[in-house]
Amino acid sequence: MSERKKIVLALGGNALGNTLPEQLKAAQVTAKAIVDLTDDGHRVVIVHGNGPQVGVINNAMTEYAQNNHSFTTPLSVCVAMSQAYIGYDIQNALREEFLNRNEEVPAIAAIVTQVRVDEDDEAFSSPTKPIGGFMSKEQALAEAGARGWVVREDSGRGYRRVVASPKPRGIVELKAIRAMFDAGHLVICCGGGGIPVVSKGKHLAGVPAVIDKDLSASLLAESIDADMLLILTAVEKVAVHFGKPDQKELDRMTIAEAEKYIADGEFAPGSMLPKVQAGIQFVRSGVGRTALITHLQKAREAISGKTGTLIVRG
Amino acid sequence: MSERKKIVLALGGNALGNTLPEQLKAAQVTAKAIVDLTDDGHRVVIVHGNGPQVGVINNAMTEYAQNNHSFTTPLSVCVAMSQAYIGYDIQNALREEFLNRNEEVPAIAAIVTQVRVDEDDEAFSSPTKPIGGFMSKEQALAEAGARGWVVREDSGRGYRRVVASPKPRGIVELKAIRAMFDAGHLVICCGGGGIPVVSKGKHLAGVPAVIDKDLSASLLAESIDADMLLILTAVEKVAVHFGKPDQKELDRMTIAEAEKYIADGEFAPGSMLPKVQAGIQFVRSGVGRTALITHLQKAREAISGKTGTLIVRG
Repeated sequence: MSERKKIVLALGGNALGNTLPEQLKAAQVTAKAIVDLTDDGHRVVIVHGNGPQVGVINNAMTEYAQNNHSFTTPLSVCVAMSQAYIGYDIQNALREEFLNRNEEVPAIAAIVTQVRVDEDDEAFSSPTKPIGGFMSKEQALAEAGARGWVVREDSGRGYRRVVASPKPRGIVELKAIRAMFDAGHLVICCGGGGIPVVSKGKHLAGVPAVIDKDLSASLLAESIDADMLLILTAVEKVAVHFGKPDQKELDRMTIAEAEKYIADGEFAPGSMLPKVQAGIQFVRSGVGRTALITHLQKAREAISGKTGTLIVRG
Repeated sequence: MSERKKIVLALGGNALGNTLPEQLKAAQVTAKAIVDLTDDGHRVVIVHGNGPQVGVINNAMTEYAQNNHSFTTPLSVCVAMSQAYIGYDIQNALREEFLNRNEEVPAIAAIVTQVRVDEDDEAFSSPTKPIGGFMSKEQALAEAGARGWVVREDSGRGYRRVVASPKPRGIVELKAIRAMFDAGHLVICCGGGGIPVVSKGKHLAGVPAVIDKDLSASLLAESIDADMLLILTAVEKVAVHFGKPDQKELDRMTIAEAEKYIADGEFAPGSMLPKVQAGIQFVRSGVGRTALITHLQKAREAISGKTGTLIVRG
């Protein structure tokens, strides 16, 4: 068994499926991976994405408001709703997994989390974060015209709506999260990267954006003094020359190597790029901190050093 | 200053307004009432209703699924979403109120909460809980025909859709809630009475219902060994002969008196009746426990014995 670690686990919104039945099943797979880690003595906080989910919720709330001439639910509130929409299934699946293993169910809580961003973040003028489902090019252009969406081709998988993705600057509910984590409880938080808010004096106002959940997870990992940022995604290792004949999977990269790859345009924006950037940010924040990127179902093996891509200081 | 108490505060969903701008304003008023209590040394857990809000969310998600031939979001998941939709504003308003008073902001967390109900609760065959907005009789009958809703006249305020409201039997996330409360943190939980779930072996399955938030608050108060169940609503005192020339406001009632009034049909189902029933349930559960029903903005005065209706053992 590997050393016991304090781990912030970041789980992709796409890994959670596009429908609720898919999400229920995905949450079960996720719960197995998480309880594997807690069984090994690691302490885990769970952060999840919400790209597909917040897109559906936002569409539904916007269309309903249009059809009923009522108040439109802002994207920030839709992010809040997505935290419960997803957190509910994850906490439920975790409880069931502990019971399946005849283990005591710990205190588990999905916490509604706000994350502060800067009002003048340049992301507001250049949307990059994909939300909602995939569309054909024709469909995407039609929606863009009809609704004022910005749409973009997403990593060869089709077109999606993109929204602003400002950098996370502070986790508003950090005190509650840290208290729960320090007491040994299992916390699900910063869902979808957190509800994006900006400070207006003493008030926090929601803004129309979706924060990258890997960057929020990195900030959280830093804030609770974690040992590892574990980013779980659809691939086992990070690759360079991705999709080309000389594609090469990486076991390990230093910050310097990772930054060179980024400069060379090796990682797709809105996909692998923010994961590697989040990893670098956390590793740089303190000695002894590592980031690990791997497939959801390879987490345990990767922590033992058998697979995944590890980012280290150098 | 009155004795320091452990209080579960139940806040009406209608008191939170029908739109997000109304909710934002209502949350500020609510936060003032809550921080008044914590300033007096009381320890408070907050439970809120979700009647109007879950109705809108459920309508939006259902219509979107119909228009897009996609999977319908169950009412239970809509309850989850309403917990974040409302909890976000309350936690934000609380933070701001502490800052306005130049007080340290405590750990505040809105926790996604599931509440167990019995699968064979008779409520499933007889819907009573109003959700969504008010409608005219004509509108209500048209919606009932088109969507298969059950609709009912609600306390002289118009027609609303009603759904099953089974009794809460256990709070799934109790361990997390109790840990936070015992550590002195401010917890918002059991929103909308909690996400209604039934046990299917080790799995918890959502069911199409909305649990009465006052009954869930009562169960929570019992479970965390609170001293008082404080039910905040739109009236300062409970009245008998309500709306009649001999209407009489009550300062105090024993369990026996309250049960007599209920038998006499003094309290409206879906309105004052569940509040009084929740109060009785909590007061009966242990010596020294009281329930207090009053107006949101009279909480502090009522706890000092100056107003409100107190329910006592006898």
